[in-house]
Amino acid sequence: MRRGEQPSSLHAAGGSGSAPAGAVKRVSVLGATGSVGQSTLDLIGRNPNLFKVVALTAKHNCERLAELAIRHGAELAVVAEEAQYEDLKQRLAGSGIEAAAGMAGLIEAALRPADCVMAGIMGAAGLRPTLAAVSQGRRVALANKECLVSAGELFMEAVRQAGTELIPVDSEHSAAFQAIAGAAPDSIERIVLTASGGPFRTWSLEQLARATPSEALRHPNWSMGPKITVDSATLMNKGLELIEAYHLFRIEADKLEIVVHPQSIIHALVGYRDGSMLAQLSSPDMRTPIALSLAWPQRMTAPTKRLDLVELAQLSFERPDEQRFQAIGLARQVMRRAGMAPAVLNAANEIAVEAFLAGRLGFLQIAQLVAETLAQGEACGLLGESTALDGVLETDAAARRLALNLLERGRLPGAA
Amino acid sequence: MRRGEQPSSLHAAGGSGSAPAGAVKRVSVLGATGSVGQSTLDLIGRNPNLFKVVALTAKHNCERLAELAIRHGAELAVVAEEAQYEDLKQRLAGSGIEAAAGMAGLIEAALRPADCVMAGIMGAAGLRPTLAAVSQGRRVALANKECLVSAGELFMEAVRQAGTELIPVDSEHSAAFQAIAGAAPDSIERIVLTASGGPFRTWSLEQLARATPSEALRHPNWSMGPKITVDSATLMNKGLELIEAYHLFRIEADKLEIVVHPQSIIHALVGYRDGSMLAQLSSPDMRTPIALSLAWPQRMTAPTKRLDLVELAQLSFERPDEQRFQAIGLARQVMRRAGMAPAVLNAANEIAVEAFLAGRLGFLQIAQLVAETLAQGEACGLLGESTALDGVLETDAAARRLALNLLERGRLPGAA
Repeated sequence: MRRGEQPSSLHAAGGSGSAPAGAVKRVSVLGATGSVGQSTLDLIGRNPNLFKVVALTAKHNCERLAELAIRHGAELAVVAEEAQYEDLKQRLAGSGIEAAAGMAGLIEAALRPADCVMAGIMGAAGLRPTLAAVSQGRRVALANKECLVSAGELFMEAVRQAGTELIPVDSEHSAAFQAIAGAAPDSIERIVLTASGGPFRTWSLEQLARATPSEALRHPNWSMGPKITVDSATLMNKGLELIEAYHLFRIEADKLEIVVHPQSIIHALVGYRDGSMLAQLSSPDMRTPIALSLAWPQRMTAPTKRLDLVELAQLSFERPDEQRFQAIGLARQVMRRAGMAPAVLNAANEIAVEAFLAGRLGFLQIAQLVAETLAQGEACGLLGESTALDGVLETDAAARRLALNLLERGRLPGAA
Repeated sequence: MRRGEQPSSLHAAGGSGSAPAGAVKRVSVLGATGSVGQSTLDLIGRNPNLFKVVALTAKHNCERLAELAIRHGAELAVVAEEAQYEDLKQRLAGSGIEAAAGMAGLIEAALRPADCVMAGIMGAAGLRPTLAAVSQGRRVALANKECLVSAGELFMEAVRQAGTELIPVDSEHSAAFQAIAGAAPDSIERIVLTASGGPFRTWSLEQLARATPSEALRHPNWSMGPKITVDSATLMNKGLELIEAYHLFRIEADKLEIVVHPQSIIHALVGYRDGSMLAQLSSPDMRTPIALSLAWPQRMTAPTKRLDLVELAQLSFERPDEQRFQAIGLARQVMRRAGMAPAVLNAANEIAVEAFLAGRLGFLQIAQLVAETLAQGEACGLLGESTALDGVLETDAAARRLALNLLERGRLPGAA
């Protein structure tokens, strides 16, 4: 983090109201020690006159959490693992920063008055705190996939009821959000999400059958955790993004498209009824969509590499091959099925990716295990109607058990 | 024109106010028989429940003008050439449509109460009627280059004083307008206009020296009149667009860039301070930006070819070669010089292109004649401060005389 840089200022955009230019925004960061959390604090640290840090949370890394809380002058620091509470308390002793732990602490962090809550806790663990933040009706910058994939109907209903301003942080959804920028839903003909195609874009089915974890982890454009990198290789990542876009933008499933764009420069395009498409382009750096989520409808400076179109020279597009990458078809299938089907898909995929990384499953079997879990889940009534949060978490757990069971019984064609 | 199609409806966009959805918009079309005018009336004809035609004007084609006025139920039809008045009057006899002629008639058409005036008269002839429309403070859809190139300061001052909503119709400026969509000027780092590169994109200087009019008229993407097609070949078209963007978007000259993009799919990009670029893409069909200018901030359906990115496969970008295409440097020079320099450039270019088309000037000499006219114009005080409209028209005429004089005296290196 290059500190001491000249802070930039925000400028009021014409249009919808928000905090006046120059007003200090109070920001809480749920998942402060993760990749999105650290990028958020990097941007906040560069603009100390624009932001005030309210609450920070982390899963277990107390040392890093305490360091960030002290550096940014947070009011509250929360560690999710209760056993770490004393450690955190000691590290914050004398700082004047409150310490808390466990789910109650995470929810307290989410509810603490703030102008923006960065929902950066990954996985199902992020559901409850993010829903708590949404219930405030304040702005939520959403970086958690599960809220929309596993609990989309429930989550968006809470957003509507609380009148929450929801700004997506994922680069594709941030791109679509910018390209929509308040346009009337009926003026939109389609939303196109781009996919890099991952490391196996040009591989044959035979090659894919033999793909190893280390090959899957070589993503051409983005540096991310192993789970999401494997999801990029299977294109399940894009399948999950389809489901997220479906809820976020309240658009019919058949108006959502995926196009493979190996350079990952255009992140999404929105097609309008007059034939125009608006697209957002940027270097692969999460600080661009994070800056947008913090500053929108204004813009703040982000120290990211600017695009040089001449240097890029070419942007190319291909149709995704749904034969080789079956995750896209599965995602479309669960969107149509609705109810708990997307939650089951997501849970089964996590088990499948773990098994692939552990060498227990071939690459093509990831989608097979997901498909099989969906089929078995349908048979045993797991895919029913959308429920309240407890039901979502129960379905998530049940789907994991089902997938593990299928995995252990070797119930996949050609499974190890 | 496929009439009898099911009319589409407009939908209110969230945000800035305009006519309520469903309200009939009163539209006048200055230059109704030209390419922009006819595309405008095509769109209006497809949506008879959305628009009411108020006034139509044409230069001399009374037959076509009367036909359009009757078909669209106009209130007033105006022919610019006074000698055509009786012909127009006879053609409209019994229709209940008023007939008028000359500059007074054009101004009456521009001033007639309307929700939107399409300013589609080409050349210096469009200055006075368009300024009259601007003075109303109503929406003006601007398709006339000279208002911004020759009279930019004066014109934009009139826009500001009247509080006119100005929507550009040129595809590049419409693209930038959409990619800006109300963003704060300070959030914008740069605006990039794309250029197809024209038919001579890959030609060497030696080849360019021998380029013929028929070669220059083979534009790869757009079908346009001969003057603008030659401007695309010299890239003067892009130079003029730089000057227009400079005034339209009130942006510093050094934040305006040109990139060559042979496919002409992305028409402009806007770079923001957070590293995002927003771009507008569409097929090369003027009905897309015209539909935007009629419907903004809503969107109306335009029957244009939708983009298929996979079919397009590749979008490429190159740096424009300012050695081979000197028009860009000349445009930057007159932007810096300001005052009447852009009007002189524009007038000299018209003379030079006419001379090239008539076989009196080589292709590379088009820019040379413009440069020479600017140099001589500076010497004789023609490039002074920006003036009122009469002064602009006088400067335009003087620059034409100067350019013709230089042409006739063969005062160009290697002139015929």
